[in-house]
Amino acid sequence: MKEKVKIGYIGLGRRGKSVLKNSYSQMSDVEIVMLCDLSQNRLEAGKQIVLENGGYEPALTTDYREVIHHPDIDAVVIMIGWSGRPQMAMESMKAGKYTAIEVGCADTIDECFDLIRTYEETKAPLMMLENCCYGRREMMVLRMVREGLFGELVHCTGGYHHYLNAEDLFKGIDTDEIPHYRIGHYERCNRENYPTHELGPISKVLNINRGNRMVRLSSFASKSVGLKHYAGETFGADSRHAKKEYKQGDIVNTIITCAGGETIQLTLDTTLPRAYYSRNFSVRGTKAMSSEEGHVVYFPEMGDGIRENETEMFAKYDHPLHAEYVSKGVKAGHGGMDWLVNRAFVESVKHGCNTPIDAYDTVAWMAIGPLSEQSIAMNGAPVEIPDFTNGKWENPAPALAGKYSLDVICEDPDVSVV
Amino acid sequence: MKEKVKIGYIGLGRRGKSVLKNSYSQMSDVEIVMLCDLSQNRLEAGKQIVLENGGYEPALTTDYREVIHHPDIDAVVIMIGWSGRPQMAMESMKAGKYTAIEVGCADTIDECFDLIRTYEETKAPLMMLENCCYGRREMMVLRMVREGLFGELVHCTGGYHHYLNAEDLFKGIDTDEIPHYRIGHYERCNRENYPTHELGPISKVLNINRGNRMVRLSSFASKSVGLKHYAGETFGADSRHAKKEYKQGDIVNTIITCAGGETIQLTLDTTLPRAYYSRNFSVRGTKAMSSEEGHVVYFPEMGDGIRENETEMFAKYDHPLHAEYVSKGVKAGHGGMDWLVNRAFVESVKHGCNTPIDAYDTVAWMAIGPLSEQSIAMNGAPVEIPDFTNGKWENPAPALAGKYSLDVICEDPDVSVV
Repeated sequence: MKEKVKIGYIGLGRRGKSVLKNSYSQMSDVEIVMLCDLSQNRLEAGKQIVLENGGYEPALTTDYREVIHHPDIDAVVIMIGWSGRPQMAMESMKAGKYTAIEVGCADTIDECFDLIRTYEETKAPLMMLENCCYGRREMMVLRMVREGLFGELVHCTGGYHHYLNAEDLFKGIDTDEIPHYRIGHYERCNRENYPTHELGPISKVLNINRGNRMVRLSSFASKSVGLKHYAGETFGADSRHAKKEYKQGDIVNTIITCAGGETIQLTLDTTLPRAYYSRNFSVRGTKAMSSEEGHVVYFPEMGDGIRENETEMFAKYDHPLHAEYVSKGVKAGHGGMDWLVNRAFVESVKHGCNTPIDAYDTVAWMAIGPLSEQSIAMNGAPVEIPDFTNGKWENPAPALAGKYSLDVICEDPDVSVV
Repeated sequence: MKEKVKIGYIGLGRRGKSVLKNSYSQMSDVEIVMLCDLSQNRLEAGKQIVLENGGYEPALTTDYREVIHHPDIDAVVIMIGWSGRPQMAMESMKAGKYTAIEVGCADTIDECFDLIRTYEETKAPLMMLENCCYGRREMMVLRMVREGLFGELVHCTGGYHHYLNAEDLFKGIDTDEIPHYRIGHYERCNRENYPTHELGPISKVLNINRGNRMVRLSSFASKSVGLKHYAGETFGADSRHAKKEYKQGDIVNTIITCAGGETIQLTLDTTLPRAYYSRNFSVRGTKAMSSEEGHVVYFPEMGDGIRENETEMFAKYDHPLHAEYVSKGVKAGHGGMDWLVNRAFVESVKHGCNTPIDAYDTVAWMAIGPLSEQSIAMNGAPVEIPDFTNGKWENPAPALAGKYSLDVICEDPDVSVV
């Protein structure tokens, strides 16, 4: 087992900086060997974060290839915008590095196949840093499912219900700030562009790539009026932002059918006013139901009309990782799940094991974006989801154990294979 | 205007009896001329209800044709099970009667076309008694939409989230009680079998058949395991109910696309344990959002993280019909909406006007069942929704006014055309 994990870190935008600050630079067994960004200001800010948290001074570069080919680096963390990640990840894997990428979709299906071919050639682990897989609610439900408390699973829902107009999409437009890269995607594409926060945890619950797989999807987009309306109200009806056409429909619904007969319903909902953030995570089985909207985990013996019992349920069914984590004091962003997912990556590197979210998971989730775009363009015609495992989902590799495992419920700190 | 509305009433099962008791027999300007059912016991029980509420003694018959051809009867109310309603309704319309049918789908698309042809030949008004169109939440949102407070509408959701296993589907099985007729549908069909509670109000909000129409749908069913599981637990694994195959998937999702670019997402959810009943009625526009799950009506100026403000919103935006109704004391079942929808039918007969839910609405909603079945059978392939108006949706008949109108917000008690 490695004493120290040596990290090369690419991308110091808002998210990259935050994760560096709250996770990697706080880990005493992690050394940030090199930071990479195109902006000198961001590089300097990143260096200060590392130094303030007691790290060695990292090397700085604007060339990501320097990071990837750095002989001392064990693992590369890629925090750049949505596009370009697969190419960078493939170079990193070819250089033999453990590779982590922030959440998001591929631009094209070809990128997904390229990633999987690269993984199969190099065997360099690839992990999407899907923090919501380590969310407290999601992990409690995962534990209960693994313990059989939900019976046979039938249906899951998830959504990215997050109003982004002011927060992300138009932030920095018409000011000196750099605009968020996402707005360009909303101009060019009409698709489920951000499914993994919900699909990650759902995939784990449904054993996708571990005895089950996603077989086909259909996607449907509403008209696109939210961005234009917002731009008109904010910048004026004659502003270029209000006159622009945005391809992205305001609400996108996607239905995925799995090999086991389960269905998954996903919703993207980011450009219309909404009252509260929700990932609408719900799991339905023959013996139980969980619902984020109702803040409830339910067994039939509770009777009818039950809501808002999650606090009791956490007390009873918290995943051991969260129980430990909560008792020690939650660290980092988003209720601790940012820390946990990055810690899971570091632990895998330390132990020389595969990552709990592996290359097949990563690619299956990244593929939803381009596949949904195809379906929307065909008025919701069903689109087959490629089997990136090439049949291996039916006889998957042995489960990963250790306390960060998403396969089994395990309190053992060491990652291993069971 | 008629002083008295003379009603012939067919079907005295659980629902028929309840509506007779709580609505029609309580209306002083309604005379129940004849009751019809195949069971003498039910007929006797129905007669007692009418007499107890001060009505004249109704004639009793087991032959529905006697009701339909009764010369004194103005209007026929059909409360029989799902199948057979269209045929009975057509006979009633051909006899020149105002005709009301309980909520539910057609068995086939042919039935829908037959109904519309009959309506266009006879001009006898046909109304589905979709009580949820008169629900308090639904009417508040309708009022707010009509007043422009939601801006441009983009997306609606609805669901029939109602766990029926014990309540309906297996009730009376293996006892002397008559089993609920619905269980037969669950054995034979796989479809969205009960969409109108949510689709009715949504159609009104989106002006379906009045400037807008539903263009196509796709439907997706999960596997079917809830009924078998329940039967196994309740009657034993070896019971015939546990060994039977049920075609109906446990969760059915349907996405409808409208001519105006709006999308509608519907869910049928009746056979898996669930924590609470919900119709998941939500409406999304450029200026506001409403959500039954969050019990919220939302404007962006409220800031982020708003839930549970419906009580305030009712105080401010109650539909005038509900405001009046609540102030006078709510009558009848389901929070008053049973009374209101039946009253709306009676008022239309009294005034000799068309019904606020008309033949085109009725048929458009009834068609969702068979169309969803087609789509499910084709793995979710999109199915065109026939335009039963034959183009008239683009230049619809003048709006109906009066306080029961679903077209305009109007406090005038008299039904009229504006």
